[in-house]
Amino acid sequence: MNKFPTIGILGGGQLAQMLALDGYPLGFRFVFFDPTADACAGLVGELMVADYDNEIALEEFANKCDFITYDFENVPVDAAKFVAKRSDVFPHPNVLKIAQDRLNEKVLFREQLKLPVGDFFTVDSYSELVFAAKSCEKNGFLKTRRMGYDGKGQHRITENTDLKSLWDKLEGGSFILEKAVDFKREVSVILARNIQGEISCYELCENKHKEGILTTTLVPAVESKNSLMAFDYAKKIANALNYVGVLTVEMFETDDGLLINEMAPRVHNSGHWSIEGAVTSQFENHLRAGIGLPLGSTDMSKGFSAMINWIGEIPVVSLTTKEKDVYWHIYGKQNRPGRKVGHSTVVADNAQDLHSKVVHLAQLLGAKK
Amino acid sequence: MNKFPTIGILGGGQLAQMLALDGYPLGFRFVFFDPTADACAGLVGELMVADYDNEIALEEFANKCDFITYDFENVPVDAAKFVAKRSDVFPHPNVLKIAQDRLNEKVLFREQLKLPVGDFFTVDSYSELVFAAKSCEKNGFLKTRRMGYDGKGQHRITENTDLKSLWDKLEGGSFILEKAVDFKREVSVILARNIQGEISCYELCENKHKEGILTTTLVPAVESKNSLMAFDYAKKIANALNYVGVLTVEMFETDDGLLINEMAPRVHNSGHWSIEGAVTSQFENHLRAGIGLPLGSTDMSKGFSAMINWIGEIPVVSLTTKEKDVYWHIYGKQNRPGRKVGHSTVVADNAQDLHSKVVHLAQLLGAKK
Repeated sequence: MNKFPTIGILGGGQLAQMLALDGYPLGFRFVFFDPTADACAGLVGELMVADYDNEIALEEFANKCDFITYDFENVPVDAAKFVAKRSDVFPHPNVLKIAQDRLNEKVLFREQLKLPVGDFFTVDSYSELVFAAKSCEKNGFLKTRRMGYDGKGQHRITENTDLKSLWDKLEGGSFILEKAVDFKREVSVILARNIQGEISCYELCENKHKEGILTTTLVPAVESKNSLMAFDYAKKIANALNYVGVLTVEMFETDDGLLINEMAPRVHNSGHWSIEGAVTSQFENHLRAGIGLPLGSTDMSKGFSAMINWIGEIPVVSLTTKEKDVYWHIYGKQNRPGRKVGHSTVVADNAQDLHSKVVHLAQLLGAKK
Repeated sequence: MNKFPTIGILGGGQLAQMLALDGYPLGFRFVFFDPTADACAGLVGELMVADYDNEIALEEFANKCDFITYDFENVPVDAAKFVAKRSDVFPHPNVLKIAQDRLNEKVLFREQLKLPVGDFFTVDSYSELVFAAKSCEKNGFLKTRRMGYDGKGQHRITENTDLKSLWDKLEGGSFILEKAVDFKREVSVILARNIQGEISCYELCENKHKEGILTTTLVPAVESKNSLMAFDYAKKIANALNYVGVLTVEMFETDDGLLINEMAPRVHNSGHWSIEGAVTSQFENHLRAGIGLPLGSTDMSKGFSAMINWIGEIPVVSLTTKEKDVYWHIYGKQNRPGRKVGHSTVVADNAQDLHSKVVHLAQLLGAKK
């Protein structure tokens, strides 16, 4: 390894930005590659602006880098494979390929690894949609197989859904229809796996969403009697993929146990709390894993932590106040409805203290917005 | 204020780097100006490489910035004044002018503010050197009035010093001879003062040096019965200068009370512990002060903290281990004897725990170097 390795990141969003901010104190250098000139990672390092099919730019990018990773899972696989011929890329582009297609993911989880997933049906035609809707008792979610995130590309299917007009509106494509799951809550496992195959899991994260977008994460998940099982499932996935880096696996917790929802081959919004809430953040551990350094401890730094996302608008309070155990993260993006523009983290010694602090934080964020 | 202000920093060393790393999560942008192409702040943001008398470059730099500040106190005053015509500069360039000259500093402290300083004598000729050496009983330090830092430009004067050959070696210049002070320890006050004149002091720092270079800081200084007096002195200096930003005042603690040694019109090595050891770091508060935001709390985050500098060499342990309450900061500079290449911080709940952790940290740094 170079003394000060240069790490390239395909995609220049806030995940790339936070990878760099946690990687700089390790002496690492960063270069970002993104088609958008105002990609927010560009605020904290060198940004190459080019399309993902621009091989001249990709080659220049790869030549600058000792290691390359991703900001998001929808980086074109061809671009990842192209740079992988010239530099070390983690996780492997084949993992991207699986994670980019909900069907591939489900097949991996259910067929290959025999892990529990909810009922689902492939939909490539109107007649398949009708069949699938009936099979899931007209209670489910039609999702694009590819390129969905933050609830985008999803359609609720109920008894009242006019399937014909929905299908016409979609103008074709490949989908899966997932039967609605009666879950108590959503949880995620965030783990780091290094080149030697060592795995370290963060405490189980309990996630709350609004309109498909993560709003709050609580760690450790309250009464997480399923956490060992959740870690076991996520580790099976990571080992099967010979995964390197941080992997996130989202699951539903039901009365009958866990169902695996999806995975993200990257650092994850539900792990942002780890910047202050864990001894080693998910960002640092992703880099450590990829570069071949020993993983840092994933223990909680103070026992309990929570993260609240800022959707659409940066709260004014984030500039005006600075309190103990409360941390602000502004990504430097312009406000826009539905956009993740920052987040706040709290840490606490015990569950009750965490609860009080989350209530206080919510008031702060609400009152002075 | 712009929504996301751009902050320019004259000088691109590790202080500029850490200002940026703490300023990014506030949404600030950064541009660094340094004559050296490998200035380490350039690793974390845009670096303009030009000499400080290059007015075309300075103008381009100033035009990019909403606010400008300094990485070190020896930025040429003319450069600071030039950019101050085009952008807000903090602290005021007049403060630089005072801080760049030990005599100006001493006059401010002793004559203007009636604050205690050790005996000193100006030396501009050999005969003055002879007189000064006699006056301080051949026990003191001859220091260049300008451009000294980290013990550079200092000469020990004792009974055995051959004054003639020393003077010949110096080839002229302006000096002061400071009488050696019989001090128990060295302490520093780090305070932030904003545009409205509000001042917030960090806990008193106890500093240990080796060959003129800071090696260890302990906070709060043990048995700091002089801390209120120290804060009072530092506040008087800040108010007299109508200071904006973080100001550091170094003092000697003697049996007869405090003597003021020197000030630094900037964030300071003895305040690096505040990144993890305080609710708001000195870096964030310097930016908050200059930009006109309310200051963040300077309270300790965990009660006690210590910082150990890495001189000359990055310890291998900083990449291989990651422990609770121990933090590594690699600046990305190449190893070189006498150079500050990084630091480590520990935080603790009580003085005894801090002591154990510092011993453990010193072992870690020593054992695996």
